[in-house]
Amino acid sequence: MTMGEPVFTLRETVLPTDPDAVLHLVVSTGFFTGEEIRIAAELVEENLDKGAEKSGYHFVFMETGDGNVGDGNVGDGNVGDEIVGYSCYGRIPGTRTSYDLYWIAVGKRWQRHGLGRRLMTATEERIAALGGRQIFIETSSTQLYHPTHVFYERCGYILEHTFPDFYAPGDSKLVYVKRLG
Amino acid sequence: MTMGEPVFTLRETVLPTDPDAVLHLVVSTGFFTGEEIRIAAELVEENLDKGAEKSGYHFVFMETGDGNVGDGNVGDGNVGDEIVGYSCYGRIPGTRTSYDLYWIAVGKRWQRHGLGRRLMTATEERIAALGGRQIFIETSSTQLYHPTHVFYERCGYILEHTFPDFYAPGDSKLVYVKRLG
Repeated sequence: MTMGEPVFTLRETVLPTDPDAVLHLVVSTGFFTGEEIRIAAELVEENLDKGAEKSGYHFVFMETGDGNVGDGNVGDGNVGDEIVGYSCYGRIPGTRTSYDLYWIAVGKRWQRHGLGRRLMTATEERIAALGGRQIFIETSSTQLYHPTHVFYERCGYILEHTFPDFYAPGDSKLVYVKRLG
Repeated sequence: MTMGEPVFTLRETVLPTDPDAVLHLVVSTGFFTGEEIRIAAELVEENLDKGAEKSGYHFVFMETGDGNVGDGNVGDGNVGDEIVGYSCYGRIPGTRTSYDLYWIAVGKRWQRHGLGRRLMTATEERIAALGGRQIFIETSSTQLYHPTHVFYERCGYILEHTFPDFYAPGDSKLVYVKRLG
């Protein structure tokens, strides 16, 4: 690797430090309400308590470091590694092959480097490997989320439906979908 | 009351016997898959574990009996009372005034007496009292659920959107909505 170029590793196993890390990352984006932030951390805790299968919440973490566990460098789960982004997804209960992308976020200072796109692709690959055929994303219609809508559309998601005033008066829910394979 | 005419009482407090009672009631309808039945009982358990507010799952139970606790007759929570139907609803996390009606079911042998309609009205009144402005119901498009669709439409629900092949290939998700007051 080239000196000075950051290396990023993907990790799927959830660690006890992740609820806090996710909390800080989600707060740093400035996008989410207090209740949403609390929910983001709770989903990580549910995975830790019950496992990915039983909780229904799977994760992809993108972090700094080379991913070589125990070599004493960054990326081995030691202090110094930093989560730069993460996604949370799961099969929608009661469905056979429909998945929700519950969260995808990149920390404020790591944005605009294409990391969100890489995280999205990695997440879609994992969903496809689990047999997923449709991925749904729900998001707010408000102006704050305009860059998010553009991001989803660039990633190939189609606006399936708008639920007016869903979150609050004037704040509608957009449902995006991507059909796989 | 007239002799021989069954009396029904509404109850909102969840009892430790309710997860099992709900399980049997939901099984009796013959409508739901194993996973759905398991989820129905789990929502009752979540309420017992965490309370209505924290779990997000509120209930209305309709049962036989006069509702006079401790008078030794039916309706006082003693053995002999029977749950004839129930609904489960809650504010959708992240929204201010949108509610999901997660479940509404009347036991097989109590159907076709207008009890579902009474349960629906009682549930809508409680949602309105909590400040709810929209009630959503998600259901399957398959032929089995045709009477359910008719029931929702008679109760004033509008088909808001169809998500094709959501539950499984050929099994779409219908989203009904009722906007209150």
